[in-house]
Amino acid sequence: RYGEAETEDMVGAVTGLAWTEVGGELLTIEGIMMPGKGKMTVTGNLRDVMKESISAAASYVRSRALDFGVEPPLFDRRDIHVHVPEGATPKDGPSAGIAMATAIVSVITAIPVRRDIAMTGEVTLRGRVLPIGGLKEKLLAALRGGIKKVLIPEENAKDLADIPASVKNGLEIVPVSMMDQVLQHALVRMPERIEWDEAAELKAHKRGVEDDSAGVIAH
Amino acid sequence: RYGEAETEDMVGAVTGLAWTEVGGELLTIEGIMMPGKGKMTVTGNLRDVMKESISAAASYVRSRALDFGVEPPLFDRRDIHVHVPEGATPKDGPSAGIAMATAIVSVITAIPVRRDIAMTGEVTLRGRVLPIGGLKEKLLAALRGGIKKVLIPEENAKDLADIPASVKNGLEIVPVSMMDQVLQHALVRMPERIEWDEAAELKAHKRGVEDDSAGVIAH
Amino acid sequence: RYGEAETEDMVGAVTGLAWTEVGGELLTIEGIMMPGKGKMTVTGNLRDVMKESISAAASYVRSRALDFGVEPPLFDRRDIHVHVPEGATPKDGPSAGIAMATAIVSVITAIPVRRDIAMTGEVTLRGRVLPIGGLKEKLLAALRGGIKKVLIPEENAKDLADIPASVKNGLEIVPVSMMDQVLQHALVRMPERIEWDEAAELKAHKRGVEDDSAGVIAH
Amino acid sequence: RYGEAETEDMVGAVTGLAWTEVGGELLTIEGIMMPGKGKMTVTGNLRDVMKESISAAASYVRSRALDFGVEPPLFDRRDIHVHVPEGATPKDGPSAGIAMATAIVSVITAIPVRRDIAMTGEVTLRGRVLPIGGLKEKLLAALRGGIKKVLIPEENAKDLADIPASVKNGLEIVPVSMMDQVLQHALVRMPERIEWDEAAELKAHKRGVEDDSAGVIAH
Amino acid sequence: RYGEAETEDMVGAVTGLAWTEVGGELLTIEGIMMPGKGKMTVTGNLRDVMKESISAAASYVRSRALDFGVEPPLFDRRDIHVHVPEGATPKDGPSAGIAMATAIVSVITAIPVRRDIAMTGEVTLRGRVLPIGGLKEKLLAALRGGIKKVLIPEENAKDLADIPASVKNGLEIVPVSMMDQVLQHALVRMPERIEWDEAAELKAHKRGVEDDSAGVIAH
Amino acid sequence: RYGEAETEDMVGAVTGLAWTEVGGELLTIEGIMMPGKGKMTVTGNLRDVMKESISAAASYVRSRALDFGVEPPLFDRRDIHVHVPEGATPKDGPSAGIAMATAIVSVITAIPVRRDIAMTGEVTLRGRVLPIGGLKEKLLAALRGGIKKVLIPEENAKDLADIPASVKNGLEIVPVSMMDQVLQHALVRMPERIEWDEAAELKAHKRGVEDDSAGVIAH
Ligand SMILES: [Ca+2]
Ligand SMILES: [Ca+2]
Ligand SMILES: [Ca+2]
Ligand SMILES: [Ca+2]
Ligand SMILES: [Ca+2]
Ligand SMILES: [Ca+2]
Ligand SMILES: [Ca+2]
Ligand SMILES: [Ca+2]
Ligand SMILES: [Ca+2]
Ligand SMILES: [Ca+2]
Ligand SMILES: [Ca+2]
Ligand SMILES: [Ca+2]
Repeated sequence: RYGEAETEDMVGAVTGLAWTEVGGELLTIEGIMMPGKGKMTVTGNLRDVMKESISAAASYVRSRALDFGVEPPLFDRRDIHVHVPEGATPKDGPSAGIAMATAIVSVITAIPVRRDIAMTGEVTLRGRVLPIGGLKEKLLAALRGGIKKVLIPEENAKDLADIPASVKNGLEIVPVSMMDQVLQHALVRMPERIEWDEAAELKAHKRGVEDDSAGVIAH
Repeated sequence: RYGEAETEDMVGAVTGLAWTEVGGELLTIEGIMMPGKGKMTVTGNLRDVMKESISAAASYVRSRALDFGVEPPLFDRRDIHVHVPEGATPKDGPSAGIAMATAIVSVITAIPVRRDIAMTGEVTLRGRVLPIGGLKEKLLAALRGGIKKVLIPEENAKDLADIPASVKNGLEIVPVSMMDQVLQHALVRMPERIEWDEAAELKAHKRGVEDDSAGVIAH
Repeated sequence: RYGEAETEDMVGAVTGLAWTEVGGELLTIEGIMMPGKGKMTVTGNLRDVMKESISAAASYVRSRALDFGVEPPLFDRRDIHVHVPEGATPKDGPSAGIAMATAIVSVITAIPVRRDIAMTGEVTLRGRVLPIGGLKEKLLAALRGGIKKVLIPEENAKDLADIPASVKNGLEIVPVSMMDQVLQHALVRMPERIEWDEAAELKAHKRGVEDDSAGVIAH
Repeated sequence: RYGEAETEDMVGAVTGLAWTEVGGELLTIEGIMMPGKGKMTVTGNLRDVMKESISAAASYVRSRALDFGVEPPLFDRRDIHVHVPEGATPKDGPSAGIAMATAIVSVITAIPVRRDIAMTGEVTLRGRVLPIGGLKEKLLAALRGGIKKVLIPEENAKDLADIPASVKNGLEIVPVSMMDQVLQHALVRMPERIEWDEAAELKAHKRGVEDDSAGVIAH
Repeated sequence: RYGEAETEDMVGAVTGLAWTEVGGELLTIEGIMMPGKGKMTVTGNLRDVMKESISAAASYVRSRALDFGVEPPLFDRRDIHVHVPEGATPKDGPSAGIAMATAIVSVITAIPVRRDIAMTGEVTLRGRVLPIGGLKEKLLAALRGGIKKVLIPEENAKDLADIPASVKNGLEIVPVSMMDQVLQHALVRMPERIEWDEAAELKAHKRGVEDDSAGVIAH
Repeated sequence: RYGEAETEDMVGAVTGLAWTEVGGELLTIEGIMMPGKGKMTVTGNLRDVMKESISAAASYVRSRALDFGVEPPLFDRRDIHVHVPEGATPKDGPSAGIAMATAIVSVITAIPVRRDIAMTGEVTLRGRVLPIGGLKEKLLAALRGGIKKVLIPEENAKDLADIPASVKNGLEIVPVSMMDQVLQHALVRMPERIEWDEAAELKAHKRGVEDDSAGVIAH
């Protein structure tokens, strides 16, 4: 059922937490990767600030590609689409940033996201997690939706004092300050860093040699 | 006659169900594929949310290309155009999503769509079917238009209690939750999955070898 | 004189019928094709719905290229420009669709359009002819402008009951439901279908072989 | 002095006639061609209808390239810029069409335009000259500006009855219906038609052969 | 100090004269050239008419490239950026045209601009200098800013009668009608014309030969 | 904690000073570089003047690439993203120009920026530092945020008379007039200038030779 936790771990599907005038809500963020030419598509009636948060999330991921076990040229041979159902509802704000980054790491590594986790936090290009608003409403929505663990920005930890004990007892609430922590909690396993020698690759390319690892196709 | 069921099974033509202020209406969705360079065109006085629903439908299809028996590079050598007549009428909303996805699967596989079926439902990137509004008006329009079977989102099944028995008796109403089910009902046969070795293809390409299957031209 | 039938059969010039607040009017639609890179230009103070009707007409033609005797790669080596004089007058609506499609078929085949024919009808991607408004005013304009034969959508045939006998006597009025019929009436001869083996062409291309038919330059 | 006839024949400089709320005015249209990649630039505070008239003029010229002695691939190796000083004054309407077409023919052929001629008329893709408004004011401006000969649309010839004899005596007024006539009057000599075998050229290109005529650089 | 004459001759820095509601002002125009792909960037809170004046200036320069000693293909291997500080102040109008053209000639030739000169005038594609407004305010600003010589459009020479003698005594005021004159006054030396055989270059290119002059990098 | 000085020297992270209606504020500017195709992305709810200041900063850096030890072709193989958190807050004005330029120099050289420095000043294409507004508010924010040294435009040095002694005692305030000075203070070490022979590189490239230095990947 939409608005509830996923029923299995899935690649590219991350549960974010939105704050609307009628309260908090679960927001499923979907990412997929396809053979393509490096195009990024974002849909779901997203306003500019949310679109920019996806752009920042994507650049964070691309600039750390080797940490995630991905050779940078893969991005030139793939298209990525990030979509936020439900398409009729406008969505804005930067607070889905860490969920966006998690979705993109998941699709490029093909590592599933744990199904019973939700998260909220703005992301910076270097993977820092910045504070958000509406913490209480978001936690209530997570509880209602069957979520077990919620990642929140460390700078919002001080706001937990105002959250009812019933909510804090029903959820494992984890303050995080860097994307590394987010991924440790959200992915079913961590990606492994690889080495990549751009100059050697360019030379091989010119000699017509190509290595075997053409990259993962996630779907 | 326009606004009625098609008179034969056709590739790329799918009957959607729209909900306007004057009631429900049949909406023919037309897709065609042409030799080209990977361009996607959408026309028919479509507003942003409907345009995005086509984008999501297209990414769902492209990311599942092998399931549909299509090698991904085909998309680089084809243009796809999705059009919703009548051009003078503005159209919006995400509820034609599954019809869009069905039309695109039909054009890339050249498998016809059954003529006496109609459908309504938002589609996600992973092929989930999300609920829609205006169910009653849409079913009435289907009945009026000579449709035999209507696919609706499983999350709307609970709304069937409010639908007059005369409508429910005149139509086969099928709740669906995933695109796989939609395609099972809508296509005259299911496409067959293929395997594709991207790395092997890239190497062959560099050696000047090309296999025989240059893909289907649908028209 | 502008606003009258052409005085000779011409490639790419088709007479459409417009319906404005001051009555019906003849609309010359001009298409030309030039050596280029596959660009489509549309001008003449056209509003969005008319622009989209040209896009649909062009996709109909491209997806049927072989039926019109044209190898698809020709479109990559040509630019097409569709213009509707008079440039100071805004023009809108989908009812010039079949005239647009006829103009494009004429320029890519270099087959002239009969000079004393006019037409009105929305076109779909599969070449169906959809009904239009303002039939009476359009027929009056055709009569005034010296037109001999007018093609109208079959779904508008029922509206002929309301047309004065003087108009019906002065014009040959032909209801049509598919573009094939439109072209049979409008072109001085029908194009001949060709076969095209895309895979063979791609292989030959890689071996540096090129056949002799580089396509028609129409002007 | 600006607003007067040019003092010598120049390549790419054509005198148009504008009609503003304060009367008629001479309008210098300037075209230049540069080594480039086929880009067309238009400047001079031009509104959409005037921009489209340049687009139509350019397509007329490109589609007739061989008539003007120019091999079509030249357009891929050149940029063209059409500018209408004075940049602070907004300009609109289709009536500079034949002047635009003349300027473009002049720059691609490097044939100068006669200095003491002015012209007004909308142009179609096939080079027809359509009627314009404000004839009297435009002729007065031409007379004031030292122009000797003015080209007007044939369909405006009937309006000459309303023009004062003093104006008609001071100017040679030439009605024209096709661009061929315009060029006969405006250019200091007519370009010579060439033949061009696209298929042969493509084959030679593949074999690495190139002919000697790399085209004229006009400046 | 900003708003005063430069303290040394510099490549790509030209002093223009602006006319704002609070009087005249010095406007530094900065151009730089970088290895690139032929992109032109303009910044500095510029409105459309000033942007178009840069476009016209750039086309004037490109179409005269050989006169300035520059082989046209250089423009494909360089990006040019024209910026007008101060970024918070909106700027409009065509009267900086000759300063823009001078800045661009300076950057592509690497010839410095004399530091104690200022200029005002619209430029046409063929390098003509058109008249401007606000002459008095601009001359006052030049005097205040320590400028020694000011170039003005010849058609504005008649307006000098209204300028106080104190201003005319403090400045060398030079009326100019063509860009050649502007460059004679503004550059520390004139560029030398070169010859260029496009056809020969293309042939050499195909044979893999490249000459030694890869162009100047200015900075 | 956001709004305070960084806790370690970092590549691409620079502290700017903003002036809002509620006082001064620290602004972290983040730059990253990724393998790519020369694309520049800017995000963070930036208005046009701030976007243009990044464009000017980037062109300053690219035009001085050799001074920073970077071969110009590197820019074609890298994408750069500049982001200014917090994404929900609109940001405008040119006064972050020198911070933008510093961030870009840091990412392309992989030289860290000193953590306890902040800066404000508009930058020109040639690296001049122009004056800004709100000096007092900005210095107060720097003091509050734990900054030790602040770079200000030399033309603002005269405004220091109005700054309370407590602020001036708590901060090392350094007036600067050129980017060279900014970099001397901000980077942990200065980049070393390299030589680059574009013509030689082009020739080698054509012969299939490539040197070893494929450039730094910063992250
Ligand atoms: Ca919901
Ligand atoms: Ca590899
Ligand atoms: Ca209808
Ligand atoms: Ca294959
Ligand atoms: Ca008319
Ligand atoms: Ca062939
Ligand atoms: Ca004037
Ligand atoms: Ca040739
Ligand atoms: Ca100032
Ligand atoms: Ca050379
Ligand atoms: Ca803040
Ligand atoms: Ca190198």
